[in-house]
Amino acid sequence: MKVVTAIAELKSIIKNSKNEGETIGLVPTMGYLHEGHLTLASTAKRENDLVVMSIFVNPTQFGPNEDFESYPRDLDRDCKLANSVGVDVIFAPSVEEMYPTDGGISIRAGRQSEILCGASRPGHFDGVLQVVSKLFNIVEPTTAYFGQKDAQQVAIIQTLVRDFNFPLEIRTVPIVREEDGLAKSSRNVYLSKQHRQEAPAIYEALQIAKEHFLATREVKEAVALATNHIEKKTSGRIDYLQFLSYPDLSDIKEDTEQFLLATAVYIGTTRLIDNIIFALKGETKNV
Amino acid sequence: MKVVTAIAELKSIIKNSKNEGETIGLVPTMGYLHEGHLTLASTAKRENDLVVMSIFVNPTQFGPNEDFESYPRDLDRDCKLANSVGVDVIFAPSVEEMYPTDGGISIRAGRQSEILCGASRPGHFDGVLQVVSKLFNIVEPTTAYFGQKDAQQVAIIQTLVRDFNFPLEIRTVPIVREEDGLAKSSRNVYLSKQHRQEAPAIYEALQIAKEHFLATREVKEAVALATNHIEKKTSGRIDYLQFLSYPDLSDIKEDTEQFLLATAVYIGTTRLIDNIIFALKGETKNV
Repeated sequence: MKVVTAIAELKSIIKNSKNEGETIGLVPTMGYLHEGHLTLASTAKRENDLVVMSIFVNPTQFGPNEDFESYPRDLDRDCKLANSVGVDVIFAPSVEEMYPTDGGISIRAGRQSEILCGASRPGHFDGVLQVVSKLFNIVEPTTAYFGQKDAQQVAIIQTLVRDFNFPLEIRTVPIVREEDGLAKSSRNVYLSKQHRQEAPAIYEALQIAKEHFLATREVKEAVALATNHIEKKTSGRIDYLQFLSYPDLSDIKEDTEQFLLATAVYIGTTRLIDNIIFALKGETKNV
Repeated sequence: MKVVTAIAELKSIIKNSKNEGETIGLVPTMGYLHEGHLTLASTAKRENDLVVMSIFVNPTQFGPNEDFESYPRDLDRDCKLANSVGVDVIFAPSVEEMYPTDGGISIRAGRQSEILCGASRPGHFDGVLQVVSKLFNIVEPTTAYFGQKDAQQVAIIQTLVRDFNFPLEIRTVPIVREEDGLAKSSRNVYLSKQHRQEAPAIYEALQIAKEHFLATREVKEAVALATNHIEKKTSGRIDYLQFLSYPDLSDIKEDTEQFLLATAVYIGTTRLIDNIIFALKGETKNV
């Protein structure tokens, strides 16, 4: 496995790979890898000749009061883990390598970014689209792999690829969970022992809401049950807990066929997100 | 020469060409071709195995009171002209083919777009960057060819390619002029006979300003002389006439080495643009 920090060196590797007619899988990450990332990488490895994993804590997707500086980083450990699942190239550029110039051009993520996580993180998805566009253009992947955990991110990136004709496929890989159901996250290391014990209630709440909705089609009741569960089982504060159509992220309607049930909860000062995407045949009511 | 209207068909041609290891030159145009466009195409032909010319009057770069509907179109004539200079593929999509969906993601051209033509055409360069990004992603060219006549456009597109790492080169091709010096433009057909006779004074004025500046380094005097020439020789109204550094399009300074002297003039209701890009060794003063 190669570890590359310079764009020019990476592009030379990519060029050779393309000249050989190889397929390239890109796994964009911010590092501090957990099993979720490794599942993305091993999926990419099964489906491609060359797997490039980027490890870059992208400053432009963090707000001024967010955890950019303190975001956990451990490149040595990440390299060992990535190597163990067959990653061929780690691309770990510095901020200066990724953003040496700023000519003032920006991407705005638009209406899909104004809800869910975007409501409390203005500019976050603009930064995501900026770095993802750059990575797509640098790596020129056949397929790029993203985790369903960041469902809103995946939906917005799918819109980017569709509306701007990026010549690649997006693959969404299911959420990887701890044994007790908590979605794996680099931010889980922030949790105290007590908070860690409370955290599985988030996924439990989503399951309760989904089941109630499937049985009754009652959105408000389903949301109330889930909210109640989180409030009873945790010391946390709910940022949002919401049903939307997926992947367009608009309000659900009579004819919605695929649903995103997503939540963000502050447990202590740590903001955890989780979601379920599910399909439905038949009628919905009282939405 | 093939004429293609569907993105999928074009991508299949591109894929075959790439599989053969061919280089691809892209010449983006809005059609109604003149010698300027044909010079772009013949330059592309000299330097590439496959030349794709897009002909697309892009609605997103026209303001609500601009000439999108009336912009001159003649695809049959364009195809004959393109064929005569060796274009291999004309890509002439419908608006629906280029913009079937709108997920709300936008590109903003930023500070380089707020001056010169951008000052009177808000959103124009945002639309240019949108369509150019899409064309880059659809055609995946080795090199894309743009005319120096739209110097601000070229500068902004160079910023896009640099800051977003598009895997291609931009080639800027010099302005092609009529015998009397008027820059070739699809919009020249709008000019009445009298206005056509006045129009060469625009380029004359730029030359006067450049020569005065080179001789004296006096920017204000140079602009005044050029303004006076246009006002005396035409019935037109100057939108702007300005020295800037190139390609960053910032105000010129002591250490500026390359200059853009650009103007836009309304002759009757037709807005004509022209420019000179020139280098300078030595000191500038009174800027």
